Amino acid sequence: MLALSAHHLGFEVHILSENQDDPAQQVVSHAHIGQLDDEETLENFAAKMDVTTFESEFLDSDLLSRVAKKTKAKLYPSPRIMGQLQDRLTQKTLLDKMKIPTAPWYPVATQEQAELAASELGYPLVFKKRRGGYDGYGTFVIQDGAALKDFVKAQLGREVSFIAEKWVPFRRELACIFARNVSGEIFHYPLVESLQKNSRCFWIKGPVKHPGFAAFAAKFKKLLAQSDYVGVMGVELFDTKKGLIVNELAPRVHNTGHYTMDTFTTGQFELHIKALFDQPIKNTKTNAKGFAMVNLLGAEPPHKDLQWTLDPSVRLHWYGKKEARPGRKMGHINVVDSSPDTALKTALKALKGFKI
Amino acid sequence: MLALSAHHLGFEVHILSENQDDPAQQVVSHAHIGQLDDEETLENFAAKMDVTTFESEFLDSDLLSRVAKKTKAKLYPSPRIMGQLQDRLTQKTLLDKMKIPTAPWYPVATQEQAELAASELGYPLVFKKRRGGYDGYGTFVIQDGAALKDFVKAQLGREVSFIAEKWVPFRRELACIFARNVSGEIFHYPLVESLQKNSRCFWIKGPVKHPGFAAFAAKFKKLLAQSDYVGVMGVELFDTKKGLIVNELAPRVHNTGHYTMDTFTTGQFELHIKALFDQPIKNTKTNAKGFAMVNLLGAEPPHKDLQWTLDPSVRLHWYGKKEARPGRKMGHINVVDSSPDTALKTALKALKGFKI
Repeated sequence: MLALSAHHLGFEVHILSENQDDPAQQVVSHAHIGQLDDEETLENFAAKMDVTTFESEFLDSDLLSRVAKKTKAKLYPSPRIMGQLQDRLTQKTLLDKMKIPTAPWYPVATQEQAELAASELGYPLVFKKRRGGYDGYGTFVIQDGAALKDFVKAQLGREVSFIAEKWVPFRRELACIFARNVSGEIFHYPLVESLQKNSRCFWIKGPVKHPGFAAFAAKFKKLLAQSDYVGVMGVELFDTKKGLIVNELAPRVHNTGHYTMDTFTTGQFELHIKALFDQPIKNTKTNAKGFAMVNLLGAEPPHKDLQWTLDPSVRLHWYGKKEARPGRKMGHINVVDSSPDTALKTALKALKGFKI
Repeated sequence: MLALSAHHLGFEVHILSENQDDPAQQVVSHAHIGQLDDEETLENFAAKMDVTTFESEFLDSDLLSRVAKKTKAKLYPSPRIMGQLQDRLTQKTLLDKMKIPTAPWYPVATQEQAELAASELGYPLVFKKRRGGYDGYGTFVIQDGAALKDFVKAQLGREVSFIAEKWVPFRRELACIFARNVSGEIFHYPLVESLQKNSRCFWIKGPVKHPGFAAFAAKFKKLLAQSDYVGVMGVELFDTKKGLIVNELAPRVHNTGHYTMDTFTTGQFELHIKALFDQPIKNTKTNAKGFAMVNLLGAEPPHKDLQWTLDPSVRLHWYGKKEARPGRKMGHINVVDSSPDTALKTALKALKGFKI
């Protein structure tokens, strides 16, 4: 979707990925196939581009730092902030430093640290892998001391480190897409509510009002400025009794922002590109009173068997992935309507037309 | 834009064109380069596709008919109706047969026929090449007998034939995008007003109301049904004292329909694809009270020199053409607003930000 937005703006788009079947490779003429952990491959690619950005936050940030230094290529977001955010320990440290509320936490690599975390934070206790976790992978919810022993035995003492987080009861999950361009201009889309299903985003609706959001956004802008962040960032939040707290940050375009592509004059994908090229990013708007996005998790391709008899309000986005697996994000639908709830209702009704 | 819409719907898109630099080739991974008048090239291409459609209406329809017959490929619109519409004489004949008003006309290949047309239709008299004319190319406005003699001397007696049309005074030009799917379902977007600049579409605004449009649309649907047309068709109209008359028909997605991509839940490009795959085409809608589209004729690429400080209402589409020539369609901007006139005002103001 990033490549398609760049096409709409007339850019020449080059994609480097490991597999010819990757959806992004299907929509560009300049396909580069190579290993993303190979320094020479990255150097050769980045050196030829005006700007390089990332679809995944899990690339080796030390490797990217060396590439940026050697080639003088513009890599956004910077390898430094990518590295800081892709490790939950340094992400948490950054949030603490900027006084942005998150669940209390401890670093955990040993049995001793795990037991300390349990005694300080209580049960249920959430362990998250420091690196590489997403959509619930790498997350363990521990209910009691016996489960803790099992967890320690099965998971600790290897190369993998964790953080332990206090279980925070929340009323609902919220999310917001922020963006910052090279010169430091910052913009954010409205706050939305999201619902997870098996640790994957199922739907979002918005806009949502929260009395604490303005203060949160002001603080968060300082984090973006201090870390010289460039591009779009997805921010996942918990709405708790004590106010908004950050669940996690994703340094990239984000599933909870897919609604923007049909709701705002500049959607998150286009906004990301504008940010990289240091264009003004505040000049986008919506007339929508309500909107919703529903992920087509594990849905079969609609092209052959299904009539696209979707409600007229529905916009379908299908990703062209070769195979539908249970829970896999195969596409999404966007709806704009008179309120968040009516939009969501229409979107969920449309979902029934798909074979899951 | 057709390829990009197909991508959003998750299709595998193959483009056959004569030049690697063509905009469509830049946005697909399956590029096929070949001559569009070569039978074997067309056969090999069409035989591999589920459905094949056309960006231009000027391909050799006899050749396409042979290809369709031999390969059993689905070509939409059909070569037969393409052939009928790409020749102004048979297009006019079809309109007359369906009792759809157009400017009175005569076929002209000889001096005698030219003089007959002048005596019957009077001056000013408009000569149009039967084949291959577009954006004013191949059109000659003749003011008097002396000019007629010059025209006859310079243009007639060669391989080229013309039609002569009576000059029809009109208040404004209008346009409408129709679509018909394989099963015969028909849809049209609203009527819009268009303004030409040097015979090229400069802007459109809409929706426009006209008391005669409902009756016109009913008649036009019969033409689409009778000719078994499949896909989107652009219909250019004159608003005259005697009502709506057809200026010309374009059997393809059309410049006057570019506004639909940011105004309707299903724009003309996506609708064309749905029509080819026999999907329902009526389920699209808009919440827009007014909209406008302005072509960026001869504009320089905005990427390097220009800040995209466009009004927040503006959506920019840039085509990625390599070179800006005077009057060349380099991109367009779409605006949705509270009325057609306010939308157009915003779009024209945004145009000033471009280097023409």
